[in-house]
Amino acid sequence: MSVQRLEQFRERIRQELDRTVDFWVKHSHDPEHGGFFTCLSRDGRVYDELKYVWLQGRQVWMYCRLYRTVPRFHTEEILEAAKAGGAFLRKHARVGGSSGLWKCAFCLTRDGRAVKIQRTIFSECFYVLGLDELSRVTGDRDMQVEAEQMMEKVVHWVQEDPSGLGRPQLPGDTPSSSMAVPMMLLCLVQQLSEGRGPPTALKYQRVGQWCVQQILMHLQRGGMAVLENVSVDGAELQGCQGRLQNPGHALEAGWFLLQYTSQWGLQDLQDTAIRSFIEGPFHSGWDPDHGGLFYFRDVDGHCPTQLEWSMKLWWPHCEALVAFLMAYAHTRRPELLECFTQVYDYTFKHFPDAQSGEWFGYLTQEGKVVLDFKGGPFKGFFHVPRCLLMCENMLDQILGRDQDQVPDQDQVKSQN
Amino acid sequence: MSVQRLEQFRERIRQELDRTVDFWVKHSHDPEHGGFFTCLSRDGRVYDELKYVWLQGRQVWMYCRLYRTVPRFHTEEILEAAKAGGAFLRKHARVGGSSGLWKCAFCLTRDGRAVKIQRTIFSECFYVLGLDELSRVTGDRDMQVEAEQMMEKVVHWVQEDPSGLGRPQLPGDTPSSSMAVPMMLLCLVQQLSEGRGPPTALKYQRVGQWCVQQILMHLQRGGMAVLENVSVDGAELQGCQGRLQNPGHALEAGWFLLQYTSQWGLQDLQDTAIRSFIEGPFHSGWDPDHGGLFYFRDVDGHCPTQLEWSMKLWWPHCEALVAFLMAYAHTRRPELLECFTQVYDYTFKHFPDAQSGEWFGYLTQEGKVVLDFKGGPFKGFFHVPRCLLMCENMLDQILGRDQDQVPDQDQVKSQN
Repeated sequence: MSVQRLEQFRERIRQELDRTVDFWVKHSHDPEHGGFFTCLSRDGRVYDELKYVWLQGRQVWMYCRLYRTVPRFHTEEILEAAKAGGAFLRKHARVGGSSGLWKCAFCLTRDGRAVKIQRTIFSECFYVLGLDELSRVTGDRDMQVEAEQMMEKVVHWVQEDPSGLGRPQLPGDTPSSSMAVPMMLLCLVQQLSEGRGPPTALKYQRVGQWCVQQILMHLQRGGMAVLENVSVDGAELQGCQGRLQNPGHALEAGWFLLQYTSQWGLQDLQDTAIRSFIEGPFHSGWDPDHGGLFYFRDVDGHCPTQLEWSMKLWWPHCEALVAFLMAYAHTRRPELLECFTQVYDYTFKHFPDAQSGEWFGYLTQEGKVVLDFKGGPFKGFFHVPRCLLMCENMLDQILGRDQDQVPDQDQVKSQN
Repeated sequence: MSVQRLEQFRERIRQELDRTVDFWVKHSHDPEHGGFFTCLSRDGRVYDELKYVWLQGRQVWMYCRLYRTVPRFHTEEILEAAKAGGAFLRKHARVGGSSGLWKCAFCLTRDGRAVKIQRTIFSECFYVLGLDELSRVTGDRDMQVEAEQMMEKVVHWVQEDPSGLGRPQLPGDTPSSSMAVPMMLLCLVQQLSEGRGPPTALKYQRVGQWCVQQILMHLQRGGMAVLENVSVDGAELQGCQGRLQNPGHALEAGWFLLQYTSQWGLQDLQDTAIRSFIEGPFHSGWDPDHGGLFYFRDVDGHCPTQLEWSMKLWWPHCEALVAFLMAYAHTRRPELLECFTQVYDYTFKHFPDAQSGEWFGYLTQEGKVVLDFKGGPFKGFFHVPRCLLMCENMLDQILGRDQDQVPDQDQVKSQN
């Protein structure tokens, strides 16, 4: 592939990142109550004022990561918005429940009153993600401790005792492992251990090893299939739940594993990540008729029961872009760059909105935009900018460019 | 419209009902554990053994209603299957929870162990529906009492104290009324009060009046829009939840109200049911480009956040067929028969499967089958046969035919 093509990718990706940041800075901030509106129509108008905690935490994280690592986003406006988001989260997200004050709401009213609590770990995880990254920007030690304490609680729920989540134990409900859980924890382990000293790093190292082992349990059928749900001891589960595949999720797990291998230097794991979590799910998840990645598949070819199974969502394509570029950066195997190009072409043809900026999120199988909003209950300022930022950085690296750096003295601000 | 056309409708509907009954009798029975498999692929194979309680109760009801009222379905095979379904429900559905032993599971394993419990009333309602109808066939007084006691519990949860359902009360969760709840209760009121004497009939009469009043609260914007969710005192709710419309649901509410008016003779309510719950939602919910009823709409024209909003599902079309034929039978207004024909043409062109029998359930906006199974977690032996049975009966009535009757002495069998 020519350097020129790679330069074209980089330029377009950089422009899309700028447009995406502009869109959310312009439309999502709530000057009255803090936090972010996430239900934004095609042109940015707020069509629902509910504040989804997953998306609040993710936007705080993304703003801080941009502020902390990219000079052109190192602005007061982004910093202040991130702080207002963090303040909103700390003030309102934790709502108690059966396990003391640790459960976070799933969504809040505009002024921060809890509307719904999920009996899972994800609101809490995105709370950790946002607050830890914000504490790195502001130097707020108290916020960092808050994030670490919540992480301890999450690890406790996952590894020791899930009763605090409030789910009833039912005799027919076979305990199972959803791949989302170790993926989420591995993401947090990487977040929380970055640059931290021995006791903290060691603690998270053990959790990280557990996560990798758990993710690998989802590789089934002699390494030929990644299954979303397996039994707690790594066997296939019966029925639809056991046969479910989510290609975008497998691809995301693939680059999480690759990131992990770059830290720990594990050649076998790198090969598995690329072959089984990236190349395999990409080829089996790609729609040969219309292009794009299916949302869900059934490993035995039954029809999935999810009504949206054949739709093309933005985020699996974001994960595929990151996964293939990272796999190429690790190995320089040209066929990985070919796959990146295939995903790139589909993605940039279908998802970006030339008229109002940002990306559409939901296409029919045939590639028609069917939900035209830019933000919704599950689409916020996260997958698109994370993908674009990572791809921009990786292309810089592949092209041998020096990445711009935020000056050291600006990286950590004291709150005083 | 010519009598010939009506005869054609009737003949096709009768054939489809026979094919649908054949399909479920052939493929859904579980001789080992009782109850019904509901996850049936296009050709009837079981692709998941989970037993969904909504669908168990509905299939018991439908079998018994066919057995009790239609001579050609008055067979031992159907009676025995209904009894086996009822026995499975009584043995396994009630699983306790925070309110004693009243909560029913949402789904069970093949052998009856609880997998999931919803914090709503619907599993319990379909339990009531199935058992009451079965008790009418078998003369099982104990089963009838069981159904009535569960109904009392459901009414208690809905009208007095929902805490037994296990939902936490959250400060930002504005108490709201979902139209599904009074619709479901009105359906049960009609089921339980059929042919019952004064004390029972009077009790249910009061509940029925409450349901009608509650359903009418969902008529908003000067009678121009039916909204799925309103506040408990009948005001519009903010955001997506408040703007949500479900045309098929409004049409179903329409014929529930019409049935109620035939019992109580309420001309104003008949006019409202036809104009506001049937004609209005039909015209605003019909897709002008591709035909068929949208699954969801936003009353202000925003994009709904449900990924499946633009899909064409089988059941709204079933409800529309029943609603327009019933409205025509009540009024003999020819334009109602024109609407019936419009729905009929779309429905019979798209949903029945000429190859394997029964109906597909899920089409894209453009009318392509996108989930090809015949039964799934929410599609069982209910909407299709209920619609076909009711339409066959109404066409007989419109055509002035005598309906075949099951001989009186066969209607109630003693268990002895």
